Amino acid sequence: MRLRVDLVPQENLSYTDVVLVVDVIRATTTATAFLEAGAEALYLTSDVESARAFRDTDVVLAGEEGGLKPAGFDYGNSPREALEAPVGGKIVVMSTTNGTRTAHLAARSAKHVLLASLFNAHAAARLAHQLATEEVAILCAGKEGRIGLDDVYTAGGLAEVLQIMGSYELEEGALTALTTRRASPAPLEPLHLSGAAQALRQVGLEADVPFCAQIAASPAVGMLEGRVGEALIFKRAQRPSNSGQG
Amino acid sequence: MRLRVDLVPQENLSYTDVVLVVDVIRATTTATAFLEAGAEALYLTSDVESARAFRDTDVVLAGEEGGLKPAGFDYGNSPREALEAPVGGKIVVMSTTNGTRTAHLAARSAKHVLLASLFNAHAAARLAHQLATEEVAILCAGKEGRIGLDDVYTAGGLAEVLQIMGSYELEEGALTALTTRRASPAPLEPLHLSGAAQALRQVGLEADVPFCAQIAASPAVGMLEGRVGEALIFKRAQRPSNSGQG
Repeated sequence: MRLRVDLVPQENLSYTDVVLVVDVIRATTTATAFLEAGAEALYLTSDVESARAFRDTDVVLAGEEGGLKPAGFDYGNSPREALEAPVGGKIVVMSTTNGTRTAHLAARSAKHVLLASLFNAHAAARLAHQLATEEVAILCAGKEGRIGLDDVYTAGGLAEVLQIMGSYELEEGALTALTTRRASPAPLEPLHLSGAAQALRQVGLEADVPFCAQIAASPAVGMLEGRVGEALIFKRAQRPSNSGQG
Repeated sequence: MRLRVDLVPQENLSYTDVVLVVDVIRATTTATAFLEAGAEALYLTSDVESARAFRDTDVVLAGEEGGLKPAGFDYGNSPREALEAPVGGKIVVMSTTNGTRTAHLAARSAKHVLLASLFNAHAAARLAHQLATEEVAILCAGKEGRIGLDDVYTAGGLAEVLQIMGSYELEEGALTALTTRRASPAPLEPLHLSGAAQALRQVGLEADVPFCAQIAASPAVGMLEGRVGEALIFKRAQRPSNSGQG
């Protein structure tokens, strides 16, 4: 099995098997928290306007623009807030600057798209391992087209878990991410150094960073199930059986 | 001063100050070796056909396609061969798959473009430090649009030298490259793990890898001086005075 890490999203990337999308600060952590809170589904849109188009239906709108809750939205992009949100059985429509767009990039070609973070690292890696037939790819959202240290570190953490479960042939992005992970066993420092954390400090939301640094606290994994218009529908993957491939 | 590392070439990258272009296996190492051997100038073209167009003039053609010397070229892309080549006072026209193209990407916007490798790491970093007024960027050529561990490692080595000379504000690509460098004090292992080295093994040229792993053996640094048609003209930078900013 191959393990590949794409450190920045690029338009020409294409996938044939499983992709773990990572925007650890904060979109994929927040998405996982909404699923933990009981959301029935997440609709990920590639921009704020597409999310707003759902406003008249019975949905909850969440996301950010410049780190903050867009006008008319019910929630921002805070995983702390998402975990406590009364969204049981509801659809959450999410739009963020980097994470939801990157999910759209993966969804163009991948067979399976999963939302991964440190928060659900073990469950996400396990599911990816069970689903994959030839390759697990980890696609880092980064920040506005540039590398994000937080996402590279998380990709390294996921790669580490995957390597525990099976034998993977690592390409160079995966080796780089693993080196980044191994250089800092405790996640808080590399996450704090990231531009994403710096941007949160500027808007007073730095308390989200320690939340995003929790490892494997959630078994919930958002998995792409289809589309509604332009939006990607993610639902919580069923707990895989122990009798499977993994 | 800012220090930025772009781990893969992307069409939308732009620069305002100094760029160190890195394709350590092998284009920027070989370019440095040709300057060491006394070449008057290097003309870097973005493809083999543009290089061939110079054939009737009094130049030497060097480069690779699929790792091997293109038909009608005088030299391949081997730095061992380049160092011994009788190119004193001559113009060497070079075309390679990743390195010379990446130099063209940098040249679109940068104020100064330098060719950097481990072989000339100290001289290249010193010159970049002296020329820069706001930012030193290191642009890794990678391999066909993907990250190259060899180039990320070299970028980390250059970043290390730059940090010795002055105070730099590091962005996340620079932090990632530095981590990669610090994880392997000896360069041969990460270079051997790279896809570029693997490709050389397939064509029997693996002996170029230890050459590329030499650190700071050369004071020669190719610096962009102008253009002739589509080709970029690089000449050996004059030894900077010690009375300068650095």
